[in-house]
Amino acid sequence: MFSKETYIQRRALLKKALGSGVLLFLGNDEYGLNYADNTFRYRQDSTFLYYFGLSFSGLSAIIDIDEDKEVVFGDELTIDHIVWMGTQPTIKEKSELIGVEKTMPSDSIKEYLLKAQRKGQTIHYLPPYRAEHKLKLLEWLNVPVAQQQASVDFIRAVVNQRNYKSAEEILEIEKACNITADMHITATKILRPGMKEYEVVAALEAVATAAGGDLSFATIATVNGQTLHNHYHGNTVKSGDLFLIDAGAETSMGYAGDMSSTIPADRKFTTRQKEVYDIQVASHLAAVSALRPGVSFKDVYELSARVICDGLKDLGIMKGDSSEAVQAGAHAMFFPCGLGHMMGMDVHDMENLGEVWVGYNGQPKSTQFGRKSLRLARPLEQGFVLTIEPGVYFIPELIDLWKAENKFAEFINYEKLETYKDFGGIRNEEDYLITETGARRLGKKIPLTTDEVEELR
Amino acid sequence: MFSKETYIQRRALLKKALGSGVLLFLGNDEYGLNYADNTFRYRQDSTFLYYFGLSFSGLSAIIDIDEDKEVVFGDELTIDHIVWMGTQPTIKEKSELIGVEKTMPSDSIKEYLLKAQRKGQTIHYLPPYRAEHKLKLLEWLNVPVAQQQASVDFIRAVVNQRNYKSAEEILEIEKACNITADMHITATKILRPGMKEYEVVAALEAVATAAGGDLSFATIATVNGQTLHNHYHGNTVKSGDLFLIDAGAETSMGYAGDMSSTIPADRKFTTRQKEVYDIQVASHLAAVSALRPGVSFKDVYELSARVICDGLKDLGIMKGDSSEAVQAGAHAMFFPCGLGHMMGMDVHDMENLGEVWVGYNGQPKSTQFGRKSLRLARPLEQGFVLTIEPGVYFIPELIDLWKAENKFAEFINYEKLETYKDFGGIRNEEDYLITETGARRLGKKIPLTTDEVEELR
Repeated sequence: MFSKETYIQRRALLKKALGSGVLLFLGNDEYGLNYADNTFRYRQDSTFLYYFGLSFSGLSAIIDIDEDKEVVFGDELTIDHIVWMGTQPTIKEKSELIGVEKTMPSDSIKEYLLKAQRKGQTIHYLPPYRAEHKLKLLEWLNVPVAQQQASVDFIRAVVNQRNYKSAEEILEIEKACNITADMHITATKILRPGMKEYEVVAALEAVATAAGGDLSFATIATVNGQTLHNHYHGNTVKSGDLFLIDAGAETSMGYAGDMSSTIPADRKFTTRQKEVYDIQVASHLAAVSALRPGVSFKDVYELSARVICDGLKDLGIMKGDSSEAVQAGAHAMFFPCGLGHMMGMDVHDMENLGEVWVGYNGQPKSTQFGRKSLRLARPLEQGFVLTIEPGVYFIPELIDLWKAENKFAEFINYEKLETYKDFGGIRNEEDYLITETGARRLGKKIPLTTDEVEELR
Repeated sequence: MFSKETYIQRRALLKKALGSGVLLFLGNDEYGLNYADNTFRYRQDSTFLYYFGLSFSGLSAIIDIDEDKEVVFGDELTIDHIVWMGTQPTIKEKSELIGVEKTMPSDSIKEYLLKAQRKGQTIHYLPPYRAEHKLKLLEWLNVPVAQQQASVDFIRAVVNQRNYKSAEEILEIEKACNITADMHITATKILRPGMKEYEVVAALEAVATAAGGDLSFATIATVNGQTLHNHYHGNTVKSGDLFLIDAGAETSMGYAGDMSSTIPADRKFTTRQKEVYDIQVASHLAAVSALRPGVSFKDVYELSARVICDGLKDLGIMKGDSSEAVQAGAHAMFFPCGLGHMMGMDVHDMENLGEVWVGYNGQPKSTQFGRKSLRLARPLEQGFVLTIEPGVYFIPELIDLWKAENKFAEFINYEKLETYKDFGGIRNEEDYLITETGARRLGKKIPLTTDEVEELR
């Protein structure tokens, strides 16, 4: 937890930005896997953490701007709770740590909100991304689920604070990035043909746990790197495979790291693997060099995509003009995802608030396949933290689909592409802070070039 | 997945038990930690798995007994899904694996249920234990959350099948138990003073992952073993500490193992630790010896509690008649939890269906502190799988509370007890199958006696 002043100041800025109304913060509850009491690991809502810092289930909070009141709602532990779950500070004691003086029992929030509505106050809430949030809004505000409308003013004010990382936040993110780097370095060292994917997962996740952290998202560790978010870990690694890892740690304060590596199952890359790998690295480095305040991340994405097209042209897989190919969307055959995303307390920071606000500043997103998956496109500013993760993927289902339509035949050499259908996918990913003049990598370096990877093998 | 015949037969038995109506099975969906797409690991509902075997999100199913129809509801993947998450069999192909012929798109379930209601059919559903279930019942059946009433007939029929483990289920449970045992053996070997609790957690959880399994519940690994379900892992292990682990693995088919160990931070137990530890072991062994068909688990619990009282009397912490102490509930100062619980696809098997049906066969539960936490009390039958886990705990908050009330002063020597306030807690736990004539331990043996523990240190 940061000092009480941090939370007081964050709330003060938020109040100023909104000006009036009641801001409702839904804390996250415990959630059962297969029955109510067999819970997943507890994860507090990130916006709740940002303004109220308390990582406990069963809490809600309001900032009543009109009445100049801040209230944490929660219940004290009973002796049964203490016997089973251990003791905790009281709600009062917890709230003092974040500079909130007023606390009330959890079931009084409904009445509080009802009174506020009667007085004509506007209740602002953020998009409910968990079923439990929807049930609370239904019960407390009597708004049917289909009609629950998050407050755009509230969203924009939160985004406008959380997008700019403070010095103390950057320290936390670097902590997460350092653990994340160790996860990747460990996996790069131990991977051998014959291992099960889940054995690599076990080793790299243990690094996060043994550092007192958790995972910032479900680990990707797969011989099928062409599937972007593949969470199956049951395959055996074979000689000749490429092994793609996308994994990250979360600190106890909830800040995330997020990196990717692609490792040959054998000690060295084959020439064919190296040729494609080098394209990813070229794209990656071009993107990193372009990072600085004022540059639109959309332009950095276009640049990274052009570099991929250039490389694939050299291999005879693409043809024609790279700029035209990217404009048309032909690059998305190989690079169907974005270049990166904001990162902070959420690995895709504030994704629940809507990418259009976080990454587009309210501007509309493209609907083009590939380009629509770009989570971040706005001009960069000092204090932004983001990932850089271009990729080169050969997705058999997508190749078959587009080939059947003869789609982008002016840019894609399908005959040559067929010979890469079993190639897999390559992604490397690092985390960057936008500084006054450029960008700084966060956390320890992980191998990026083929030489750097092979040195650890 | 078991063979299609297993699922067909299970559903046939269920239909016969209910006789009429429409049985609604709510599959579990993905659930977001901090935004919708950053999901916890996926866990299908266990009853859905038991009858329909498919571990995929977005599915529902019905068994329409009156119309003799079984339908799986779900949607096919789009190319976006395939690019991001990989390909899967079609709903039709999946359903064939479990012997279900009819499949329909997910959004048609509402209409199906509406029609059934119009025809006067009864819709049976199980207790909704996730917020997402409540939202579905609200949307599909138009039943407000507060009025959602699970079908007792449905519950009883499911319990009456799932309580009796088949040979193929027992094999799966043993697989989980073997991994679970390895988790405990690993931790017992590596624990040393100076380690952080989370370092031990990292090592033992890696054993589950590296075996292709998952966790059947959130790991307990703590120097504060007196807190029964303590999930904090940030303490440093000190010389003189007792370290309590309660952890288990889940197989890919969803079957659970669940064991506990108590390990001295040093290589040997102190005399004082051994004296209390031996009481737990005596209670544990007495309980195991009593296991056989026809014996009421409530009686086994009473026996295990009396053995604990006898041991604590020898140490001067308790006094008076052990049977009377247990009857009055004085033992619950040291043993405030149950002796064990059913185990299967849920670590507390079918806890979402209600302990009163699973463990009490519909008989009322005690409301006495301690005794009310007994999850299982019915006469044992062949095919039941359960845990044995008596414990001896010294809970400072409970000692203070009862001492202030001078509660059970005829059975508890508070003066002596004060000297044990910093002792911690001891629990050992094994998993047993009730056989025709007695009981059989499931999975590899983990250390139970102090000699066995010290041998691994």
